[in-house]
Amino acid sequence: MKVIIVGGVAGGMSAATRLRRLDETAEIIVLDKGDYVSFANCGLPYYVSGEISERSELLLNTPEGLKARFNLDVRVNNEVVAIDRQAKTVTIKTPTGEYQESYDKLLLSPGASPVVPPVIGYEVAQNVFTLRNVENLDEMMAYITQHQPQKAVVVGAGFIGLEMVENLKLKGLEVTLVEKAPHVLPPLDEEMAAYVSQELVKQGVDVRVNTSVVEILNEGKAVRLEDGTELATDMIIMSVGVKPATDIAKKAGLALGMRDGILVNDQYQTSDENIYAVGDAIIVKNQITGEEALISLASPANRQGRQVADVLAGKARQNKGSIGTAIVRVFNISAASTGLTERQVKLSGKPYKVVHTRGNDHAGYYPGATAVTLKLIFNPETGELYGAQGVGTKGVDKRIDVLATAIKAGLTVEDLPELELTYAPPFGVAKDPVNMLGYVALNVMEGLTEMIQWHEVPEKIAAGMVLLDVRNEGELSRGQFPDSLNIPLNQLRERLDELDPNKAYLVSCASGQRSYLAERLLKQHGFKATNLDGAFFLYSVVRPEELI
Amino acid sequence: MKVIIVGGVAGGMSAATRLRRLDETAEIIVLDKGDYVSFANCGLPYYVSGEISERSELLLNTPEGLKARFNLDVRVNNEVVAIDRQAKTVTIKTPTGEYQESYDKLLLSPGASPVVPPVIGYEVAQNVFTLRNVENLDEMMAYITQHQPQKAVVVGAGFIGLEMVENLKLKGLEVTLVEKAPHVLPPLDEEMAAYVSQELVKQGVDVRVNTSVVEILNEGKAVRLEDGTELATDMIIMSVGVKPATDIAKKAGLALGMRDGILVNDQYQTSDENIYAVGDAIIVKNQITGEEALISLASPANRQGRQVADVLAGKARQNKGSIGTAIVRVFNISAASTGLTERQVKLSGKPYKVVHTRGNDHAGYYPGATAVTLKLIFNPETGELYGAQGVGTKGVDKRIDVLATAIKAGLTVEDLPELELTYAPPFGVAKDPVNMLGYVALNVMEGLTEMIQWHEVPEKIAAGMVLLDVRNEGELSRGQFPDSLNIPLNQLRERLDELDPNKAYLVSCASGQRSYLAERLLKQHGFKATNLDGAFFLYSVVRPEELI
Repeated sequence: MKVIIVGGVAGGMSAATRLRRLDETAEIIVLDKGDYVSFANCGLPYYVSGEISERSELLLNTPEGLKARFNLDVRVNNEVVAIDRQAKTVTIKTPTGEYQESYDKLLLSPGASPVVPPVIGYEVAQNVFTLRNVENLDEMMAYITQHQPQKAVVVGAGFIGLEMVENLKLKGLEVTLVEKAPHVLPPLDEEMAAYVSQELVKQGVDVRVNTSVVEILNEGKAVRLEDGTELATDMIIMSVGVKPATDIAKKAGLALGMRDGILVNDQYQTSDENIYAVGDAIIVKNQITGEEALISLASPANRQGRQVADVLAGKARQNKGSIGTAIVRVFNISAASTGLTERQVKLSGKPYKVVHTRGNDHAGYYPGATAVTLKLIFNPETGELYGAQGVGTKGVDKRIDVLATAIKAGLTVEDLPELELTYAPPFGVAKDPVNMLGYVALNVMEGLTEMIQWHEVPEKIAAGMVLLDVRNEGELSRGQFPDSLNIPLNQLRERLDELDPNKAYLVSCASGQRSYLAERLLKQHGFKATNLDGAFFLYSVVRPEELI
Repeated sequence: MKVIIVGGVAGGMSAATRLRRLDETAEIIVLDKGDYVSFANCGLPYYVSGEISERSELLLNTPEGLKARFNLDVRVNNEVVAIDRQAKTVTIKTPTGEYQESYDKLLLSPGASPVVPPVIGYEVAQNVFTLRNVENLDEMMAYITQHQPQKAVVVGAGFIGLEMVENLKLKGLEVTLVEKAPHVLPPLDEEMAAYVSQELVKQGVDVRVNTSVVEILNEGKAVRLEDGTELATDMIIMSVGVKPATDIAKKAGLALGMRDGILVNDQYQTSDENIYAVGDAIIVKNQITGEEALISLASPANRQGRQVADVLAGKARQNKGSIGTAIVRVFNISAASTGLTERQVKLSGKPYKVVHTRGNDHAGYYPGATAVTLKLIFNPETGELYGAQGVGTKGVDKRIDVLATAIKAGLTVEDLPELELTYAPPFGVAKDPVNMLGYVALNVMEGLTEMIQWHEVPEKIAAGMVLLDVRNEGELSRGQFPDSLNIPLNQLRERLDELDPNKAYLVSCASGQRSYLAERLLKQHGFKATNLDGAFFLYSVVRPEELI
């Protein structure tokens, strides 16, 4: 069997090495148009700041190493420019010419290319960079070394954009971040992304949302935003997203789907039975909605590469779809998500509820505990878990990993309190934040609490609800809701006569725990009470300007 | 409804507060024989070293605070000494006398008491301590302050014993650890516990296994071990385990089971319909084996307390059993387990296989990556996950939490590679250690690899197998298997003529990854090859004396 693999990074290289383990006799040729294969693309931003100090660290393997270990024929600077499906050959362009190579099976793992937004002046500027591969990195670093830029504009506040902001800032540049969406980190919901925004501002990043760069001026010395604002800059990073790199697949007439992603069956086979595809370039099934999706993440690409090798070697393997799990570190906080966002669930029309919790990453009485804020989106009738998000200094990755596993396994809200997670004071909490998230969601499902969401507050207050703040007096100096009533929780039972049985109360505290206790107390004493989900902490991050 | 709750820590206090949230009118009396309720028992060891510096941090709540917030009637120094089930009353002993209190429902959450081993001289020594509550801690700290001990003997190398060793050592004492079992940390399997033992020795702890303290000499100035060895000491910590504190339950004629644990149905109801029980004192169902088990952990106790409150308030709740998940930090490493150990599975007679993996906690090219060693015990026919264990510097808690969730959810080996976990260089690896564990186990199930376990090596070598070490030459200085053959993996394809087709090869490398590649290569070229699971790293920890 002669197998040609196009693309030698995550998906392609996983496929090549696995295939060799299964089939010592197969002829395996890996073609990559770039100078390098098997590089650490997720590590590239960290070399900009010097946090990863050796460039060689990013180069995980070489054609020579792959030949010695796996007997792979790896050819860099070999770009496939055409596929002849009838003849089962590919045309390959090299620095010195073109040649053809035949295949029995062809695997496409071309990845995705950065989207180039329609910006005037893009072409003439020499200081506009994207970051997808080692060549991009080398260009950027050469520019930085030569020109010693002081200011940078990063366009796009997704995962890569945020990593670039962090690393440029750590390198000492003044950084402006421009995002077209209403908030940074669009893969998360607004109120969770607000924590990231808060951290960016705290670290001195100039954050501009709801706008985009429409023109690059003076050969890159400045940019103009939608509203006409001009920002001086020394370099510009474009990270507005990626699209499947499927020009060759398209030219070859393979069936494509959304955004020109390659359509494959659950064995990774394209519309041509001898051509397979994996990685960022293919359309996958979202496991929760069953809908088509494009997911540009390293983990699924690696898994798919390994699985398609099994398929090529005649083993039964099936792409079961993806839920999408991702994390980003932004200075001192991390932000992660798994499954669907609230926005996606809302769009889908499914019934859903949302809860937010704030707990310690480890026992509060043990030194160094920090807050983890979690969000769960679920079906209030069945308890189905749609998605979860987390932000915090430490322990966010762990909680989202547990929730991702729960979602993948089809667990429900009712199962979350049952999870038996590691607990000792340095590591966790006896009632882990994930358990608590389940308890709170279960309280919602069983009608023990009625949650009001942060974005509903203005309308509820306008409709006559009274905001009852049950924090202690000493906590009020951190900020208050306007026109709120304060009765500390521990005094509430004794001071019920200060409340009006005809009014509806929206109870808040710091994190939402005490307000829940107050809500239960009030309800059982005949008052109309609801709980502000996420309470003061969440509100103060997402809507600080509305507090006094 | 008048509810009396016996025991005011994890289970009891979770029940009391939850019950109040559900029922504002219930009369809830919490009785505790100690001076304190709601204290952080898992934090006690860390106060010994001063890592938790304020004693007040350990006292999470007071009777006054619980009255104000939850309207609970909490009575400390109130010991229940008898239950009159006919009259539905309890007799309570206080420092000043006895009284009776009636109940509609009685909840027992008495916890477990330290086992006192049959040691001669125990009674007369004033420097022998256990650590279950604040009073124990106060006594121990008073002794330390007054006598400034230089040496300590810790008897029992379970979780608490190890935490005491760590904290006494951090306080500057010379510590000897004595464990009756063949290895420290008996809740883990031998080879995984060996990492803990290695760390203890590295930190200067005198570790003695396979022995016990049989006599305390000179009023505690020394101890004698089984083999007659005498060890001088200034203080002795007994942490040989706990047993259900069920004397009162027994006296009242409630049905008890193994080790006098209280038998309850899945609604936490004892053999008396008006008496319920939760926490360390009850017998639970092991969710994997369906067998009875005693589990002394904070998380299940908290969950059970909350659930029994729901039951008392008339809600449908069911104890679904436990799998048992635990973690301990021992100086610079952590060790965790979930589900069954290999020893337990072996005893059960179930078919099983074992795999070990060693991977990075986060991307190797990003600074600060450390090794995580994982073990998985599974059914090789069905893929059922029986249990998992992990050791390492960082990220062990996360991996065991994910595996605990997978086990709880009934996922199989085949599902582990599918898990979509958070990945960015500071947090994880594109193929997470948990994914890798699944891949390796799947390779075993599908016959792609045949694993030889570390304890099988001597018999295999004796039977004529040749140990083939495929590490590079530079790695051999770390230690070698005696009589092993070395061919670096990258040279193997070219040097196959050095191997004997009539011999069986047991391939090893550093962690087991390269040896697997070599095994695949050899098998496909017609050689008889197996892979040493865990390879050199694991062997060098569990059997260092057999290496040269």
